[in-house]
Amino acid sequence: MDKEALKEKIFAAVRAVKEQGPLVPSITNTVTVNFVANAQLAAGGSAAMVYMPDEGEAMAAVGAAMYINMGTIFPIYRETLPRTARALAANHKPWVLDPVGIGIGALRKEILLDFQDVPPTIVRGNASEVIALANLWGLPTGQDHDGVRGVDSTDTVLAARQAAENLASFIDGAVAVSGETDLVTDGTTTVLSRGGSPLFARVTGSGCSLGGVVAVYAAVTDPFTAALSAVQAYNFAGSRADVRAHGPGSFEKMFLDGLYQASPADVASNPFRILT
Amino acid sequence: MDKEALKEKIFAAVRAVKEQGPLVPSITNTVTVNFVANAQLAAGGSAAMVYMPDEGEAMAAVGAAMYINMGTIFPIYRETLPRTARALAANHKPWVLDPVGIGIGALRKEILLDFQDVPPTIVRGNASEVIALANLWGLPTGQDHDGVRGVDSTDTVLAARQAAENLASFIDGAVAVSGETDLVTDGTTTVLSRGGSPLFARVTGSGCSLGGVVAVYAAVTDPFTAALSAVQAYNFAGSRADVRAHGPGSFEKMFLDGLYQASPADVASNPFRILT
Amino acid sequence: MDKEALKEKIFAAVRAVKEQGPLVPSITNTVTVNFVANAQLAAGGSAAMVYMPDEGEAMAAVGAAMYINMGTIFPIYRETLPRTARALAANHKPWVLDPVGIGIGALRKEILLDFQDVPPTIVRGNASEVIALANLWGLPTGQDHDGVRGVDSTDTVLAARQAAENLASFIDGAVAVSGETDLVTDGTTTVLSRGGSPLFARVTGSGCSLGGVVAVYAAVTDPFTAALSAVQAYNFAGSRADVRAHGPGSFEKMFLDGLYQASPADVASNPFRILT
Repeated sequence: MDKEALKEKIFAAVRAVKEQGPLVPSITNTVTVNFVANAQLAAGGSAAMVYMPDEGEAMAAVGAAMYINMGTIFPIYRETLPRTARALAANHKPWVLDPVGIGIGALRKEILLDFQDVPPTIVRGNASEVIALANLWGLPTGQDHDGVRGVDSTDTVLAARQAAENLASFIDGAVAVSGETDLVTDGTTTVLSRGGSPLFARVTGSGCSLGGVVAVYAAVTDPFTAALSAVQAYNFAGSRADVRAHGPGSFEKMFLDGLYQASPADVASNPFRILT
Repeated sequence: MDKEALKEKIFAAVRAVKEQGPLVPSITNTVTVNFVANAQLAAGGSAAMVYMPDEGEAMAAVGAAMYINMGTIFPIYRETLPRTARALAANHKPWVLDPVGIGIGALRKEILLDFQDVPPTIVRGNASEVIALANLWGLPTGQDHDGVRGVDSTDTVLAARQAAENLASFIDGAVAVSGETDLVTDGTTTVLSRGGSPLFARVTGSGCSLGGVVAVYAAVTDPFTAALSAVQAYNFAGSRADVRAHGPGSFEKMFLDGLYQASPADVASNPFRILT
Repeated sequence: MDKEALKEKIFAAVRAVKEQGPLVPSITNTVTVNFVANAQLAAGGSAAMVYMPDEGEAMAAVGAAMYINMGTIFPIYRETLPRTARALAANHKPWVLDPVGIGIGALRKEILLDFQDVPPTIVRGNASEVIALANLWGLPTGQDHDGVRGVDSTDTVLAARQAAENLASFIDGAVAVSGETDLVTDGTTTVLSRGGSPLFARVTGSGCSLGGVVAVYAAVTDPFTAALSAVQAYNFAGSRADVRAHGPGSFEKMFLDGLYQASPADVASNPFRILT
């Protein structure tokens, strides 16, 4: 795939979301659920969040795509998440998994193991989370440790390249690894996207909301383009907010403004390169 | 009721809230709970959110009014919401229902059907939600479909006029229908309030937090004046924020500032008209 | 303890957090969980929020300190909070309790009574909550009523001095009482810290997020210095934001910016005095 073709696909995806306003429901953590919804709305999608098993199934049927984020687990998730994943598979709907918190607690592990049978279309995580998920699913990662510390990553994006590529191939979709530079892969083509801001690390939910926006783009395009479009939109809007922000409080708001304002051309033209 | 009399009632309600700071607890969704609380505080009220059945009952006793929003449902709501509604009835406290998500899932439907026996004082929703609630309760709506798509409305405010008026008569209270223009009715008098901003649709919780502010005014005035005062406050503050905002991020903060700054005269003088 | 020695300890604590970025997990309410995480990140810490019992235990093991806030209670807390408190004791980890909502509901009371056996290192609350907790634990307070109205305080900070000092002695730690002026005590030395803004009372989570930041400092210093450092940081950043804010919306963001920008010297030099 050449770079110009990719840019055209990104342009088309960003425009399609603004035109169609796809409904993209989420089951996501309580910490950043507001930011996820607002980022999805800013990008042009429509949001709806649920917790109950039959509601997850209903959303899998009516949503154009879906987002599942493991940040905070409730007891009911033992039923909700497996049933929702099966409903998504039955309805042939794309969905994004953010395995945040992987390694903490028995239920999260049980659910993540279950997802191996009904895999997501796209995985979004930091380097340590992506390595940990690939290790959990028995895929080669070249890393014998997971590097997860709570919700932080102690691994670099490039250290997760092998894990990300094997994970993308296994799910026959795409993986986005967030870090100083962001890596997106479909297992064959791997891209690095630049931009953003160090302040992303000082605003909770930067990664979660990116996952939600990936799901919005997944409603209108293929998994790899969806992941890359969202990453590009974040790096574009993050770079712009970084210039004017006085700290994480003003940054978050300027970032949302920038995500809302970003044109298809803005997102497509954010700097990225294809790894060889 | 003439317009000048209504304006005086609005003026008095806004002033009373600022002077008295009524405690208005909520059982509300996790997505926008922070915005609900902050909007209630900005208007001059005091907020407290709970989930447990006996806490709902305790809040019904100590609160001056209450807000119940169905956006995200937890399993415990099977007990919490019916018990809280009965405690509100027993304590003769006004309360606002926001039936967001109506049509999704069995538990939400079960609870909304139960509320027909212990009805809210005020209902706040978009056109599709108001039509759907009236249909669920067997009231004439003139609409054979509900138009609900996740949390979005696909109906216009005026299409919900009959549903809103019949619903207001049934509950012997008031109904506020949110849209580009907002409709407020007590079943006899119906008002359209103008203003606001298209950006309300790009900030999650604009409607939820409006419901919370309606409940704050319901603590100090009659249901119709309460609903209209909150709608007027939102349209006033929304119009002001719209002029200066660069997108949904800055809009939300400017809107909260404006809601906090809005004087009784500002809210009363926002444009509205009585339908004949 | 003299004032200069205290200022040096504060300076060292603020610097240590910025250098080390300690992981400080929370079990906290859904209303303000986003603000808690963002304040912890702005101060230089790292955040992770959980609800499940084994996740609380896991966080007690890997976190440098922990924050438990009782604002919204879920049924699972019956297991989660006692088990987490015991894991914190077993791991000798400092933790902060915010008893918000004390007096509402049976489960909250049951858990707060249980904590008397495995007490927190630091308690953060408003005057009424601190008096209520001391009364619940049978400590002398000089007050025969609790003054709790939902989440509001109807008592003044100085009215809670005896309760705070006895509570601090009982837990062999520190207590921070939030109000117009803030009181911090270890049972022997009692300090009043000035600054902040009246707008703190119009932003939900000002108190909750302060508790979360106290826990961040507790990861690197003694309980008394941790509580005082966080209170000083809030008063410094709150004073600065107060000057420029147009209302609670802009205030919250300017406050987070200020908390992020505040240097160790800024925090240490915020006005405070030692009571005699």
